[in-house]
Amino acid sequence: MTGEFGLIDRFFKQRQTQRKDVQLGIGDDCAIVKVPEQVRLAISTDTMVSGTHFLPETDPAWIAHKALVSNLSDLAAMGATPAWCTLALTLPETDSVWLSRFCDAFFELASYYNIQLIGGDTTRGPLSITLTVHGFVPEAQALTRNGAKVGDWIYVTGTLGDSKAGLELILSAEQTLDDVSRELEKRHYFATPRILAGQSLLKQASAAIDISDGLISDIQHILTGSGVGASIDVSRLPISEALRQYVGGDMVKAQQYALTSGEEYELCFTIPDENKGSLVSALSHCNTPLTCIGQIRSQGQWELHHEGNPLLWELAGYDHFQQEK
Amino acid sequence: MTGEFGLIDRFFKQRQTQRKDVQLGIGDDCAIVKVPEQVRLAISTDTMVSGTHFLPETDPAWIAHKALVSNLSDLAAMGATPAWCTLALTLPETDSVWLSRFCDAFFELASYYNIQLIGGDTTRGPLSITLTVHGFVPEAQALTRNGAKVGDWIYVTGTLGDSKAGLELILSAEQTLDDVSRELEKRHYFATPRILAGQSLLKQASAAIDISDGLISDIQHILTGSGVGASIDVSRLPISEALRQYVGGDMVKAQQYALTSGEEYELCFTIPDENKGSLVSALSHCNTPLTCIGQIRSQGQWELHHEGNPLLWELAGYDHFQQEK
Repeated sequence: MTGEFGLIDRFFKQRQTQRKDVQLGIGDDCAIVKVPEQVRLAISTDTMVSGTHFLPETDPAWIAHKALVSNLSDLAAMGATPAWCTLALTLPETDSVWLSRFCDAFFELASYYNIQLIGGDTTRGPLSITLTVHGFVPEAQALTRNGAKVGDWIYVTGTLGDSKAGLELILSAEQTLDDVSRELEKRHYFATPRILAGQSLLKQASAAIDISDGLISDIQHILTGSGVGASIDVSRLPISEALRQYVGGDMVKAQQYALTSGEEYELCFTIPDENKGSLVSALSHCNTPLTCIGQIRSQGQWELHHEGNPLLWELAGYDHFQQEK
Repeated sequence: MTGEFGLIDRFFKQRQTQRKDVQLGIGDDCAIVKVPEQVRLAISTDTMVSGTHFLPETDPAWIAHKALVSNLSDLAAMGATPAWCTLALTLPETDSVWLSRFCDAFFELASYYNIQLIGGDTTRGPLSITLTVHGFVPEAQALTRNGAKVGDWIYVTGTLGDSKAGLELILSAEQTLDDVSRELEKRHYFATPRILAGQSLLKQASAAIDISDGLISDIQHILTGSGVGASIDVSRLPISEALRQYVGGDMVKAQQYALTSGEEYELCFTIPDENKGSLVSALSHCNTPLTCIGQIRSQGQWELHHEGNPLLWELAGYDHFQQEK
């Protein structure tokens, strides 16, 4: 667990969230932690690589935020409460300005979600960040992808499509500094992991996933895992005012963005009909927008429609975006 | 937890060790596992980067072995019993031959140590492997770096110096295929994580660490953590017959290798005088060679000697090797 750079003491031991269940944190061969009785441990790993997931010159604070959010979002999708994480950081050189900005942002967000960094490895090489996160879920209550039933309602949190638009703006040569562009760019790097919503869905939802590859791609995991189909009304996809302005009011384009935008870190989940009434009150303390976008159908049934009218553009759009990935 | 390549199903779901404490393995946003009551969880992360930790053309089976061993060794150094791991694999391209060889070796070794792969992320980028391992330790019994006391005896497992010699052979332009070279090269990639020895040391040792950066560097972590010094007799360092032949019988050179060779994955540990008698029998089932190389002294006292005679070469040698790192 020691790194080549000897940076661990300087940057990673300081300003830490101190959880009582961490018996031994950074600085030994392993961390030692205590898992409460009658909970299960949820564990996930995500890597972000320079040039693949972010541009090399990206602000290290943004990289730290995106890396932690993408991992916290996996915990949110299980309804888990964040507990601890390990960080494997590969850097081309020792750059204390870079590290300082990275760590400031990392620890601020980690502290907000009460997740403690308990170990890591700093190595020399092409810039990449691998986080492994750990959280708690009540016994036999985790939100999986496998529980959706025919007739369940399909919901998403927040708005969809912004992250893709933000990424386009970041990658475009033109520097745009208007409010709409800034909002979309911010949405790409500073998404909100839906931790509170996920926890509140534990007793409500039949299945859940976070939107990391794009709604149309991620929802397939629920459909495959649960052995069901789905019908989605694209006119109900939640579109932000910023995205509406970005596409110049072209709602077909906005809906295509909403279907295919990755790294949204919103939740997509299914709700049995009998829970539909209690859903809004169960999530009222989260301040998380919820939108019903469709319903679970029998296996093999899969349709996108617009207020009941079949869509002609959907499959072409879908394939096109799949190839882009 | 989904990857860009869609390789997870094909390569990582198959041929898995199936542990009963894994409620949900690969394939959802998180894995869900159960931690037994009255144990603590030991967690560690290590990264290996192509060009830094291995040559790009290295046999993927060797890479898999080295990556898993370096992580298992961290569990061994805490006296932990392996349970689960996650694997973040970054690859420049989808290469099913490479993946197949990597996975065959990975799963064979994982199965031997009863550690189950419960999640991962495959991403596109420069070749690197990050593993996060989880193991169990009895409550309040983990082997840390902080418990060494003045008078404790300092031990190491196995032999030291082979890994450094093996790496030199691997990096040298000359292809040497004699038995000695093969043995040393194998030792570099196929070290034995001292899991059984670590477990057996739980009630015996006052402190422990695994030798990943070199004995002289790693033992400093015990001395600093415990607030003590040490006296080491270099004539007692365990040298393999292969290393003896490699250095042409030059025992000073062999001892310098033993002091500075990294990636040995042997354990260095301290034993209170009252446990010295029971140590050999406590570890008799492990078939692990043990050598007493010195004794813990008061803080500030640090000496390398040769059968009681002070060494003149030691500090120069130490600094030299430190600079090479």
